[in-house]
Amino acid sequence: MSSTSTRQGLIIVNTGDGKGKTTAALGVLLRAWGRGWNISVVQFIKQETGRWGEVQAAEKLGIEWHSMGDGFTWKSKDLDKTTEKVQAAWSLAQEKIAGGVYDLVILDEMTYAFRFGWLDLHEVISWLRANRPPAVHVIITGRDAPSELIEFADLVTEMCKVKHPYDRGIPAQPGIEF
Amino acid sequence: MSSTSTRQGLIIVNTGDGKGKTTAALGVLLRAWGRGWNISVVQFIKQETGRWGEVQAAEKLGIEWHSMGDGFTWKSKDLDKTTEKVQAAWSLAQEKIAGGVYDLVILDEMTYAFRFGWLDLHEVISWLRANRPPAVHVIITGRDAPSELIEFADLVTEMCKVKHPYDRGIPAQPGIEF
Repeated sequence: MSSTSTRQGLIIVNTGDGKGKTTAALGVLLRAWGRGWNISVVQFIKQETGRWGEVQAAEKLGIEWHSMGDGFTWKSKDLDKTTEKVQAAWSLAQEKIAGGVYDLVILDEMTYAFRFGWLDLHEVISWLRANRPPAVHVIITGRDAPSELIEFADLVTEMCKVKHPYDRGIPAQPGIEF
Repeated sequence: MSSTSTRQGLIIVNTGDGKGKTTAALGVLLRAWGRGWNISVVQFIKQETGRWGEVQAAEKLGIEWHSMGDGFTWKSKDLDKTTEKVQAAWSLAQEKIAGGVYDLVILDEMTYAFRFGWLDLHEVISWLRANRPPAVHVIITGRDAPSELIEFADLVTEMCKVKHPYDRGIPAQPGIEF
């Protein structure tokens, strides 16, 4: 962990139906990397095999990146497997947060795990309260952040869609959206 | 410029009173860099001398970064100088956008130039319509994006403040907010 004397770790939540939830977390990652911090990213939904721009960037930067999901798992037919994968992601996240090595841990698309009942929100918050070292920043992203999570967090931003190119039939652009 | 055969350059606006406008632009920058794109950043307000986390990161990544402002210039006593600086930033931005070298040009905090009358929005939009190569993505950030700009843009997100640690007396944290 980098020097933490004056640092107050924040619980940050990026939610809402607009673009920019994961993207803003990546921006923080870039800033933190610029300052020489240790960073770990745990993705709860994105597939292990994805070669997104951010995964390529993290690799080039030497940032630890774990894509633990199996895609858009709420459409999955094998929900036991999904539950297992999400719980494995949370175990890994706990290890990263509590371990004292990382300054910033990003839990990408974690809110879906609460929404679909794969993780118990109350247990997650209790664990974070008891086990997160005070200097460690944690960012949680995803739509529909539950109100208890918003209550618990220090910094919450809602990304609101004003206008999206999908609406005009323009597909997602590589480099911009993924 | 990288391969542009299937690419449709977007005008992206990140606005609103919440956190994450510049930060989400940095996230796109990271993705784009991960894909090997050429990127240029022009900051309209931030001071040349700032050693923000993002500036340090850009330097390490070899990304072109121009901080053209003189700080929070709307408090400035020398408004001629401010106007001059903002116009120099726009000239530089025009060169970067039209030049055919860059895949992504970020115009950070540019909306303030419209709000305070340092740039004419109508002229800027006309120029972009006429001179932006179709594959070039442009991101404009800042509060209070004018409605004509929103109308012109392809992708607009409003970052809405839900909860901010300032409100509880916790100051901005390095690595997270700058």
